[in-house]
Amino acid sequence: MEKITIKEIAKICQVGIGTVSRAINNGADISQETREKILKVIEEKGYIPNNSARNLKRSETKTIAVLVKGMSNPFFGNMIRDMGDEIRKKKFTMVLHHIEFEEDEVEVALELIKEKRLRGIIFLGGYFKGKENRLIKIPIPYVLSTVGGIPEHLDKTKYSSVGVWDVQESYKAVEYLIKAGHRKIAIFTSDESKEGIGLLRLEGYKNALTKYKIKINPRLIRNMKEEIEYYSMENGFAMMQELLQDKEEFTAVYAIADTLAIGAMKALSLSGKKIPEDYSVVGFDGIDMGKYFIPSLTTLSQPMEKISSETTKLLFQVIMGKEVHKHCILEGSLIIRDSSRTVL
Amino acid sequence: MEKITIKEIAKICQVGIGTVSRAINNGADISQETREKILKVIEEKGYIPNNSARNLKRSETKTIAVLVKGMSNPFFGNMIRDMGDEIRKKKFTMVLHHIEFEEDEVEVALELIKEKRLRGIIFLGGYFKGKENRLIKIPIPYVLSTVGGIPEHLDKTKYSSVGVWDVQESYKAVEYLIKAGHRKIAIFTSDESKEGIGLLRLEGYKNALTKYKIKINPRLIRNMKEEIEYYSMENGFAMMQELLQDKEEFTAVYAIADTLAIGAMKALSLSGKKIPEDYSVVGFDGIDMGKYFIPSLTTLSQPMEKISSETTKLLFQVIMGKEVHKHCILEGSLIIRDSSRTVL
Repeated sequence: MEKITIKEIAKICQVGIGTVSRAINNGADISQETREKILKVIEEKGYIPNNSARNLKRSETKTIAVLVKGMSNPFFGNMIRDMGDEIRKKKFTMVLHHIEFEEDEVEVALELIKEKRLRGIIFLGGYFKGKENRLIKIPIPYVLSTVGGIPEHLDKTKYSSVGVWDVQESYKAVEYLIKAGHRKIAIFTSDESKEGIGLLRLEGYKNALTKYKIKINPRLIRNMKEEIEYYSMENGFAMMQELLQDKEEFTAVYAIADTLAIGAMKALSLSGKKIPEDYSVVGFDGIDMGKYFIPSLTTLSQPMEKISSETTKLLFQVIMGKEVHKHCILEGSLIIRDSSRTVL
Repeated sequence: MEKITIKEIAKICQVGIGTVSRAINNGADISQETREKILKVIEEKGYIPNNSARNLKRSETKTIAVLVKGMSNPFFGNMIRDMGDEIRKKKFTMVLHHIEFEEDEVEVALELIKEKRLRGIIFLGGYFKGKENRLIKIPIPYVLSTVGGIPEHLDKTKYSSVGVWDVQESYKAVEYLIKAGHRKIAIFTSDESKEGIGLLRLEGYKNALTKYKIKINPRLIRNMKEEIEYYSMENGFAMMQELLQDKEEFTAVYAIADTLAIGAMKALSLSGKKIPEDYSVVGFDGIDMGKYFIPSLTTLSQPMEKISSETTKLLFQVIMGKEVHKHCILEGSLIIRDSSRTVL
């Protein structure tokens, strides 16, 4: 069989060779209608795209990497799904990498850039303080989404960011408990020596106590256990078991993640304690499960859908050259449910 | 500055050009030690790999696509993470696609193969009955993982599969309730007209009732609501609200997913019903949340870690040409917790 060439296909379709190529390679700047017409002709005529040329084009596949720290936290589940959907709508594909807590996400990103021709990166979660020197090496557009510790001296025109103001939102959660009459409020957070968003939320906790002239009791500041997966229900469960054993008095616990709060509630329940009669529990994030838990969980809810859509929007605006990098701080909202109460 | 060539790098390192290329492109068949040695020399000498050659190599980046149906179900969360970790360990990257319930995953796969040079595909979830004609068009290794409706006439040497035997596992869950004295057992499943794993689990339910000579009451077979996200807690909540309104008598409910069971328990609790005193609830999947819920959820647990590891293992064995396609049926286990009880 005589092989038909791309030139002949272009002639039949009355378009340029570039257009045929764009149709084959799913490129931009071609209407869906034209693309389908061309692909139909290609199929009819049995045209086989030149392999090496095609592969070269293929290697330009538009790929976005999403690097998630702490992927087992259900907080990220729907965000990954929604970002993936947006990326797909733009005819890009999403490469997903799960980053371990002890791993450096920027190192992983730099490795990945070497290996794959990425068009952009989304960092989901993680903590970036002190990582300036490596962040500036990232040669493609990136967005820091719901991360902590954005380096102060990093040139803000070089990246975008989306998230809530953790210190302030955390303050709101603790202030709510204080206004409800609680004075002995435990916090479940991450080790101060560890990098993490927990540091910022702990700061908000301390600010609120200080503002209302409540002495900070270090024995009520509890850190996630290193030997258990971070931000897991299991970790919150173990933290609460230990707190109860320590016999330190408290009337409320504020956990910096809903997963930790849920684990804590389970431990309280198994110890025969009633929520909220004996203890009030407040979480952070606003995952679906909190609404269905018995009792339903009071939480500082992050606007997850908005975070996802803003993150992809900012990234694509920069990739398409339509906008410069931007920084978007969204507001969380306190959702008061059944796990907390006013004490007199 | 005079440009150093790949030949000179090879000479300095006392290796072949191919080895240098493999070091640059993160290829196989090269020891970590050799690779590091070569990369060090490349850095010292300031060698810049030829761009087009490099890109051609790059386009061979080893990519696995994971196509997930129903990604918001937390059942898939840790499996995606674990599969991603395995894929990364093999120096491949994972492209993740979320497939809507009404979307055809095989169509998406065929599109993706056109766009990207994939080395393998994992289908996670979904239902494949009647999709033989398109499945045979997939020219690369693939694994059907925890899917339903594997086409009977599909050549089993052309693909791998991993999962539990849904009919049988479902039978086990319902048999447990029957042996605990329940006769009026509702099932929360998917519409019989819909494709889905729900059909298989419904079959197990019917088999168990029939075996124990319990008349099947169609009014106790409840379908997920179309207007609400499938397999969501919200859907289980709405299903239970409706069932309670219908005043049909029952003493137990078996939900084909833990998420549905959790939503159902919430609706029961809000109606002032006690679990398990008034109603027993049994789920399917074995997600973490079931353990922490109050009351903790009795469930037919799928071996998620084993499913993830077998799925990636089978896929890579075929990709590496070490093994032929295999089919792995794993066993689930009934975990009896606090949400169910024996009735007399």
